[in-house]
Amino acid sequence: MTEQLAFLDAAEALLGPRGLTRDHDLIEPWLTDWRGRFTGRALAMGSPADTQELAALVRLCAQHQVPIVPQGGNSGMAGGATPDASGTAVLLSLRRMNTIRPIEPQARQVTCGAGVILQTLHDAAEAQGLRFPLTLGGKGSATVGGLVSTNAGGTQVLRHGSMRALVLGVEAVLADGQVFSMLTPLKKDNRGFDLKQVLIGSEGTLGLVTAATLKLVPAVAERVVIWAGLSSVQAARTLLLHCEEQVGEALEGFEILLQGSLDAVMDHVPTARPPLTGGHPWHVLIEVVADRASAETIGAACEAMLEQAFEQQLLDDAVIASNEAQADAFWLIRDSISAAERERGPAVQHDISVPVEAMPAFIDVAVPQLEAAWPGTEAIAFGHLGDGNVHFHVIAPRGTDGPAWHRGDGKAISAHVHDLVTQWGGSISAEHGIGQLKRDELARLGDPVALDMMRRIKHALDPLGLLNPGKLL
Amino acid sequence: MTEQLAFLDAAEALLGPRGLTRDHDLIEPWLTDWRGRFTGRALAMGSPADTQELAALVRLCAQHQVPIVPQGGNSGMAGGATPDASGTAVLLSLRRMNTIRPIEPQARQVTCGAGVILQTLHDAAEAQGLRFPLTLGGKGSATVGGLVSTNAGGTQVLRHGSMRALVLGVEAVLADGQVFSMLTPLKKDNRGFDLKQVLIGSEGTLGLVTAATLKLVPAVAERVVIWAGLSSVQAARTLLLHCEEQVGEALEGFEILLQGSLDAVMDHVPTARPPLTGGHPWHVLIEVVADRASAETIGAACEAMLEQAFEQQLLDDAVIASNEAQADAFWLIRDSISAAERERGPAVQHDISVPVEAMPAFIDVAVPQLEAAWPGTEAIAFGHLGDGNVHFHVIAPRGTDGPAWHRGDGKAISAHVHDLVTQWGGSISAEHGIGQLKRDELARLGDPVALDMMRRIKHALDPLGLLNPGKLL
Repeated sequence: MTEQLAFLDAAEALLGPRGLTRDHDLIEPWLTDWRGRFTGRALAMGSPADTQELAALVRLCAQHQVPIVPQGGNSGMAGGATPDASGTAVLLSLRRMNTIRPIEPQARQVTCGAGVILQTLHDAAEAQGLRFPLTLGGKGSATVGGLVSTNAGGTQVLRHGSMRALVLGVEAVLADGQVFSMLTPLKKDNRGFDLKQVLIGSEGTLGLVTAATLKLVPAVAERVVIWAGLSSVQAARTLLLHCEEQVGEALEGFEILLQGSLDAVMDHVPTARPPLTGGHPWHVLIEVVADRASAETIGAACEAMLEQAFEQQLLDDAVIASNEAQADAFWLIRDSISAAERERGPAVQHDISVPVEAMPAFIDVAVPQLEAAWPGTEAIAFGHLGDGNVHFHVIAPRGTDGPAWHRGDGKAISAHVHDLVTQWGGSISAEHGIGQLKRDELARLGDPVALDMMRRIKHALDPLGLLNPGKLL
Repeated sequence: MTEQLAFLDAAEALLGPRGLTRDHDLIEPWLTDWRGRFTGRALAMGSPADTQELAALVRLCAQHQVPIVPQGGNSGMAGGATPDASGTAVLLSLRRMNTIRPIEPQARQVTCGAGVILQTLHDAAEAQGLRFPLTLGGKGSATVGGLVSTNAGGTQVLRHGSMRALVLGVEAVLADGQVFSMLTPLKKDNRGFDLKQVLIGSEGTLGLVTAATLKLVPAVAERVVIWAGLSSVQAARTLLLHCEEQVGEALEGFEILLQGSLDAVMDHVPTARPPLTGGHPWHVLIEVVADRASAETIGAACEAMLEQAFEQQLLDDAVIASNEAQADAFWLIRDSISAAERERGPAVQHDISVPVEAMPAFIDVAVPQLEAAWPGTEAIAFGHLGDGNVHFHVIAPRGTDGPAWHRGDGKAISAHVHDLVTQWGGSISAEHGIGQLKRDELARLGDPVALDMMRRIKHALDPLGLLNPGKLL
């Protein structure tokens, strides 16, 4: 206790009133995760202005053995930015570190502070005729530091990869307060281990990302958004291969959903209209994107692609969005699935991947298996078929009491889904990370050799265990 | 000594005569590195047949504290696969582990043993209408294990990235003989630290790569190879930007060389002919590649690109190879530079990178500076301008005694080049790795924070220091 007070006095002296607060009202909104599953407590909230202040704070924390829980927009899906209930940790907000350095359009890159919000980054790139090609539902709050630390995914991974593929340089404060600084991007650099790769996706357990240099691509000059109706998820996979064959890397999004999810969105979003006139077991949303170099030919290429798909009976019906407003309306349906599904009652959600080519068979096996084992449940899959990644929800029988069901059947169902996906060589966390939500499941199902390597690396870089304790490992 | 004999007896019993040899005549060819700079000794040479045999050998090595020096094709550029002079290490050949699993064309990937030779991999992919998009001079001997362990580069990095970008899965034996197995590729997987990234490029110091799953891309349906003459390296950079703007990701190679290097190749390769009629200070070799989807339009796109380049005076002269034979002849010139330059006498070579946009200015500063500081030397740069990576050679004054010059001026020149490139935020090893050649320079010039992180990770994963000792760190 005296130790804590000594730390707080020193931290207040270091950061000033803007940089450190103990005011419960200011801290409280940040103590519960976005999905409302975890609530913790904190000794104080630190909001350093820059990397040097943060490094000094971390040295103080190391000296007084105070744990640190880093947080960006607090929109993570796995409770990775929420402290535990002990109240011994400093909650570290990176939100003040939100500088975007001037963008040099020719170099096609941008250096941002950890606190820059994704939407702000999108706007800054667009103003230079460029684009940061990663987007996701939480773009209005998710920060660069959080995106790097969780190796975020989204709906453009098919072409551009996850965050890791877009990170050219990283700056981070390590557990002892040293600053790792590799922001200057080199296209080729073989000076030993690629340490930024160790930091990306480590969820703040190995270092605190303070800034990143990110890849930009040419702005979208033309996009073609297509909605198709299909008879099976196997057909969706065949259509995906056809599209890849026809338009190659211009294929940027390939999202699947069930008729039931479409119906749920229609109930949930009053302005939404079904893109096709009839019903179909499965629906696919396809986005094809062209930069200036290929803008003129992309429309014809997509029409030819669809025509052949009809001829080869790869789809049952399809429509090309006739303008940007309609394209946005198609995407709004996709982006509303999660919220619409939530209205249907208690459910357990899983963010899973298997090898891309195996996903249709996985869905066809997993859905009936789960619905048979837990009568009255409904299993649905939607999302990024092109990445072998779907969001797999199992909805409780109608009229079920949520909390009790979650503790009982819900938990058993999740364990079953994770067992199954592991048997199929897949991942229990495709894009949301481990955080505290899946930590026990990773310990249960993860490869023991990989877990051992992770623990060794964690101990080597954070021997006191002060960086985001209780997360991931 | 008794310990060594006990180890050798156990290893012979484990691997049999094909798997372990102490025959000096069989071992000797593998004890000197490809460039002839380093020669070592070995206790024996192990050639396990598969991962399980290798794992058992590593457990024996750990038990008897015998160091292990892994080797693939022995065509590395930094002495990374050559044991030291003590003769205490086992030289580990991965060459017997050369299985290529059947390629599933739709999945666009291939799983290879560490001993598969790059050329063999190229052929296997081609047979399925696909392509492994990494190539380099040593493709007839370089192995998959070595390419992964050194994060190899080459002439297609501009579009496809270095080896790291092509590795989807890795299997490796760790220092304690455990097998890390992540060969099944998942496009998205956020189950904690991405451990394969730690192994890629770690030069066998953290684990012994036994197999990898690699990305394949569609076969080349059409390629356009262009040779251009320019007045300056700054002009080459402007031309590069123009090409990127015009043909986007179809631009696969952009290599620069000086008139002097072209002349050297003409002297060295009797059948070679200069692509252009007149002389130019700088030359550029450009390759634009189309798959089936864009094969029809690529020729016209390249002609338009060149026409505009002429109009905007971005180049002085240019020619498009009229057929595959001429295209190959252009590339033969590029690929003969190293050998041709070697004939000009003693020289020190540097494999350096700086941020892509800074490379022309770097060359314009570095060349005169070095030639002024060491009168009579000639500094030349050639290679991958599109990656910000050139091979920077400084040739000794005519008539110099090689060995003495290397020990004196040569060494001082290398230190100066490395200092300079570090000042410019660049890398002293862009694509060749550190090995034993640049270990001291990395210790001298590397970021102390990064070096500390590397040493911690090394100690965590190989506490006895048995994996490729004396390399990298």
